[in-house]
Amino acid sequence: MKKSTAAMFAAGVSGVMVGLAMLGAADGGSDQTKPRYTADGKLKTIDPEVFRDWVQLGTPVTPNDQNNGEAAFPEFHAVYVPQWAWAEYKKTAKWPDGTILAKELIKVGDKKAPSGAGYFEGEFNGLDVAVKDKSKGPEAPGNWLYYNFNHGKPPYAAEAAAQPKANCSSCHESNAGPEADFVFSRYYPKVKAAAAKVKK
Amino acid sequence: MKKSTAAMFAAGVSGVMVGLAMLGAADGGSDQTKPRYTADGKLKTIDPEVFRDWVQLGTPVTPNDQNNGEAAFPEFHAVYVPQWAWAEYKKTAKWPDGTILAKELIKVGDKKAPSGAGYFEGEFNGLDVAVKDKSKGPEAPGNWLYYNFNHGKPPYAAEAAAQPKANCSSCHESNAGPEADFVFSRYYPKVKAAAAKVKK
Repeated sequence: MKKSTAAMFAAGVSGVMVGLAMLGAADGGSDQTKPRYTADGKLKTIDPEVFRDWVQLGTPVTPNDQNNGEAAFPEFHAVYVPQWAWAEYKKTAKWPDGTILAKELIKVGDKKAPSGAGYFEGEFNGLDVAVKDKSKGPEAPGNWLYYNFNHGKPPYAAEAAAQPKANCSSCHESNAGPEADFVFSRYYPKVKAAAAKVKK
Repeated sequence: MKKSTAAMFAAGVSGVMVGLAMLGAADGGSDQTKPRYTADGKLKTIDPEVFRDWVQLGTPVTPNDQNNGEAAFPEFHAVYVPQWAWAEYKKTAKWPDGTILAKELIKVGDKKAPSGAGYFEGEFNGLDVAVKDKSKGPEAPGNWLYYNFNHGKPPYAAEAAAQPKANCSSCHESNAGPEADFVFSRYYPKVKAAAAKVKK
């Protein structure tokens, strides 16, 4: 009995290890700077260790205390883009097909520091991702599809289905608009500076 | 007379071109991810096109309207570190010798957007740089020296002398402290997460 329990335990451990190895092969091995989908068309998540090293386009903050306690996103929005897509944008002032914009939400932490009163970043609190993909969103404005990998602390969801149009796209459509390729570039001076340089 | 004017003009143009080429060889050719000094020991500037593509550690904001109109830095502080130094930090939780921390100041622009009320980035407005360099600051706390490439819109100053201790180092010394290597990491969750991972 003791022996068979030990054998079952060993088999269990080795099964878990095989499982982990397969997971590694399926996900970690592929290029996270391009959109990766599950068999049923959901977007696979991006490891924060990966996207946090991408180029950060900017970081607005819309705190609850400035929105009667009811901000739509009461956090800092740290927006990242992979290096390859940013290099393209800097050449053409256009987001290339396959662009991923990752927006990590970061709670307001301290509101007072030696440098003064204001807003300082606290805990990571969610991941929203926009992907420009002609093959997945041929009819979507600018071919952008929007995904939510949960609003809450990490770990974020492993995969996400595209959001219905009303949740994200319609706001980007009416407020960012086609002239900005539906991206809120006007709040991101880094993006504006890159585009201005191309147009010179 | 016409001919000699044309000749002088041509000589002038070619002189300017030679001058520009020499400038390129002296500055643009070297690696801006490591500190570069002038013959008289000033720190050479870093091209915004270069440091804006480094890893952005975080972006607090201390607006005037939260500081009775008199914030010490009334801007967003976008803090960047070169990829090589960040890779080292993620391995060791220590800033290696030669680390450059570039802090670009970005004015508050819009305070209202479709996502709510808050603070959105406006115009670039200054560059402060901290460099950890044992050879230049053997007596400085953590070997950090601090430089100000002007507080105002780009282009930033081409070179800067190290700031007197009272202007920067003394605040980092008493408020960030030796346990944080004199860096305000506690306001940068990305840095905290990286350090926590090393210590696990």
